[in-house]
Amino acid sequence: MDRNKKIWMTLAGIFLVLLIIIVVQVFVRKPYTTIKIANISEGEYDPAVWGQYYPLEYKSYLRNKEMAASPTGYGGSEKIQKSIKEPEILINFKGMPFSIDYSEDRGHVYALEDLKTTKRINQTTAGACMTCKTAQLTDIFKEKGWDYAKIPLMELLPQLKHPIVCANCHDPKTMNLRVINPAFIEAMAERGIDVKKASREEMRSYVCGQCHVEYYFVPASKKVVLPWGKGLHPEKIYEYYSAKPNDFAMDWKHPDSEANMLKAQHPEFEVWSGGVHAKSGVSCADCHMPYMKVDGQKYTSHWVTSPMKHGKEACRTCHNQSDQWLLDQVKVTQTSVWEMQRIAGQTVAKAHEIIGKATKAARTNKAELDKARELVRKAQWYWDFVAAENSMGFHNPTMVLNTLGRSIDLAHQAITTIEKASGGR
Amino acid sequence: MDRNKKIWMTLAGIFLVLLIIIVVQVFVRKPYTTIKIANISEGEYDPAVWGQYYPLEYKSYLRNKEMAASPTGYGGSEKIQKSIKEPEILINFKGMPFSIDYSEDRGHVYALEDLKTTKRINQTTAGACMTCKTAQLTDIFKEKGWDYAKIPLMELLPQLKHPIVCANCHDPKTMNLRVINPAFIEAMAERGIDVKKASREEMRSYVCGQCHVEYYFVPASKKVVLPWGKGLHPEKIYEYYSAKPNDFAMDWKHPDSEANMLKAQHPEFEVWSGGVHAKSGVSCADCHMPYMKVDGQKYTSHWVTSPMKHGKEACRTCHNQSDQWLLDQVKVTQTSVWEMQRIAGQTVAKAHEIIGKATKAARTNKAELDKARELVRKAQWYWDFVAAENSMGFHNPTMVLNTLGRSIDLAHQAITTIEKASGGR
Repeated sequence: MDRNKKIWMTLAGIFLVLLIIIVVQVFVRKPYTTIKIANISEGEYDPAVWGQYYPLEYKSYLRNKEMAASPTGYGGSEKIQKSIKEPEILINFKGMPFSIDYSEDRGHVYALEDLKTTKRINQTTAGACMTCKTAQLTDIFKEKGWDYAKIPLMELLPQLKHPIVCANCHDPKTMNLRVINPAFIEAMAERGIDVKKASREEMRSYVCGQCHVEYYFVPASKKVVLPWGKGLHPEKIYEYYSAKPNDFAMDWKHPDSEANMLKAQHPEFEVWSGGVHAKSGVSCADCHMPYMKVDGQKYTSHWVTSPMKHGKEACRTCHNQSDQWLLDQVKVTQTSVWEMQRIAGQTVAKAHEIIGKATKAARTNKAELDKARELVRKAQWYWDFVAAENSMGFHNPTMVLNTLGRSIDLAHQAITTIEKASGGR
Repeated sequence: MDRNKKIWMTLAGIFLVLLIIIVVQVFVRKPYTTIKIANISEGEYDPAVWGQYYPLEYKSYLRNKEMAASPTGYGGSEKIQKSIKEPEILINFKGMPFSIDYSEDRGHVYALEDLKTTKRINQTTAGACMTCKTAQLTDIFKEKGWDYAKIPLMELLPQLKHPIVCANCHDPKTMNLRVINPAFIEAMAERGIDVKKASREEMRSYVCGQCHVEYYFVPASKKVVLPWGKGLHPEKIYEYYSAKPNDFAMDWKHPDSEANMLKAQHPEFEVWSGGVHAKSGVSCADCHMPYMKVDGQKYTSHWVTSPMKHGKEACRTCHNQSDQWLLDQVKVTQTSVWEMQRIAGQTVAKAHEIIGKATKAARTNKAELDKARELVRKAQWYWDFVAAENSMGFHNPTMVLNTLGRSIDLAHQAITTIEKASGGR
C-alpha cells in the first residue's frame, strides 16, 4: 500500500467513526437536548399527558407523593399536627380553624385532597380557598372572574380534579413559565412589576411566589389580596393591615383575650425576598428544583422538596463545603430560630390567658385592656409570620430572628400592661 | 555576519537582559520575597526596630493610629462614649466603672495610653488589668509569674512603654506566631489544646483570641481566668459563673436592683468560634489582616481594622459580590442586631429600676426579689455578651440574635415577677 492510499484509508476510518457517533446520537439515544415544544392543549391539566413529552420532569414530579421528615428535623412533608410539638398553637389560634387542624404541608400532588379533607372547611367556606390548590383556576377565573371567590367552596369542589400540576407554572403551548394566580399578578402590578415582562430567572421565583405568600380575603367579595401596599417586611404588612384595607379588620376575635387577630399564611416569597439568597440572584427553583442529570441528560427536578435532599445539585453548585457541613449549618440556624419561635409562641399564649382573665374579672379598665390586646395582636403576628413560613427561618435568618425578638418583647409588654393595670391579681 | 554569529549574538543579548533583571532584583529592588529572619532580640518591643526589617508590615501597623468611624456605621475606632447612642448603659452599669467611662476601642497602638487615661482605674486597680495592654507582659510574667496580677496597676504602669506591638504575636527569633497571654494558654490547655502545637492557620486566630475573649479576675489572687470550663457559648459561660468559680460570685452589686452582676468583656473569639467563618476555616487575620500587594510584593496588613475598609482583599477572595453589595449585607445584619440590642438593653434597664423600687418599698417578699434579681443578672449577661462584643453581631448573627431574644425574654420575666409580687404598684 503506498503512502497516499494509507492517508486516505485513515481519513475514511475517522469519518466512519464520526458517522456512527452521529447516527447513535440522533436515532439511538432518545433524550432531547433542548426544550421540546409538545402539542399540549390549553386546558390539559393531567400531568400524565404532559409527562409523555417530559418523562424526566414527570418522573421527578411523581416523587412529590413521597412523605418524609425533613433532613434537618424541621418541616417535612408528613401530615403531622404542628400542635404536637408546639401546643401553644392550640391557645394562640383558639376560636378559629387552625386550632382544630394545622398540620405540616404535604406535596403539591396532595393539594386538592388535603383541601377536601381538612377540618378547617365547612359549608360556609368561600371558593377563594381553592385559588392555590388547582390549575383549573385558569378556566374558572376566565369564566367567572373574581366572582368565583364568593361561591361556596363546596359548590366548586366537585369539578376540581387536578391539584397543583404542570399547568400552574407552564404555558402548554410554549412551555414558558407563567403565573396564573390573579391575586399575585395584581399585587405585583401594584408594585410596578409586570409579570408578563419578567425574565426567566425572575419567573423561577414568581411561579412559586404566586402562592407561597401572605394573603387575605376581602370580607364582602372574598377576593384574594396580597397585603403588600406598604412593603413585604412583616412590620410593613402589619402597618398595612392596621389601616383596615377593604374593610378587613381581622381574621377572627380571640375568645380569651378578645383581641382582633390576624392569621399569617405562608410568606415564603416575602421572607426569601429580603434574604441573602434572593439578593444573590438565587431563585426558589435553584434550590428546590435544581438541575439534575441522568444518563448525561440535564433536566429540572420537579420534586419540590428540601434542598438538603439533593445538596450536590441544590447547594454545592455555589457552596464548596460537604453535604454534611451544609446540613449542620442549616440545622444550627434552624435550631436557633426554633428556640426563639417557641419562646415567642408561648409568651403570646400566656398573654392571651392573662388578658382573658382580666377581661372576665372586669376590673381592668377598657383602655388598658385594649392596649394589651393591640400588643398581643402584633406579637402574635410577628410570631405567626415566622412560624407559618416554611423554612424555620432559613430563608432569611437575621430578619426572622429580629422578628421573633420583637414578638417576645411585645407579648411581654402585653402581659406587663395587664399585670400593672389589674394590680398583679 | 554569518548565521552562526547572529545566533550567538542574539543569545548573548538575551543573557545580558536576564543578568540585568537578576542584578536589579537582588541589589536594586529591596523587597524580600520570602519571610526574612531578622536579628531581633527577645525583649525588643519597639515596633520601629522590627519595622526596619519589615517595612511594609510596619507601615501598615502605623495605620492603627488612624481613628475613624466604621464603614458600616457600627463600631469604629473613634473614642466616643457608647452611652451617647445607648443611654441604657448608664443604668445597666450603675455603680461600676463602665457607667463612668465606656468608649469605643481605639487601635492597638493606643492600648497603654487609653489604659493610663481611662476613668475606670484608680489606686486600687489590680495589675492584672495590663495583661492585654502591653507586650512587656512577657518579661513581667517571666520575672514574677501570676504575682504581677495582684500588684497595683499604678505601680506597674511607670515601667510600661510599649502597647500591643509586634512581640505580642511574633517570636522575634523565628518570626513564628506566638501567644504570650498565660490566661489564654492555660484556658486552651484545659480544653485539651496545646497552643505550642497549633498550626499556623490556627495561630492566625489564636494570636487575636489570646486577648479578644471574656475573662474574670480570681478575687484573692487577681489571676486572669477565661471562663471556658463548660464551653464558649454565652449560656455555658453563664452556667460556669453561676457555680462561683474560685470564689468569684460577681463583678459588682447593682445599686438599684441589688442584683449580683457580671460584666462581659469582649468575647470576639467565643462568638467567632461558633460562626460560619470559623466553621469555614476563616481566621481572624484572614479578614482583619488580609494579604495585600504593593509593587507586586505580597505582605500581611498589620492595620487591624474593619474588613469593610479593604473588601477586595478581606472579603472578595471568597465572596464574588461587589464591595457595595457586601457592605449592604453586613449593614442589614448589623442593623438587625442593633435593634434587638437596644430593646434588650432598655428592657434590662427597666428591670433594674422596677426591682430597685420594689426593694426600696420593702413590701415585696425576698424570695420574689431574689428571683427577679437572678433574672435581670442573666438578662444583662446575654445583652452585654453581645453589646460588649466588637462586631455588632456579624461574627455569628444567628447565635447573637438568639442570645438577644433570650435577654429580652428574661428581662421582661424579671419585670413581670416584680409586678406580680408587688401587686403592680
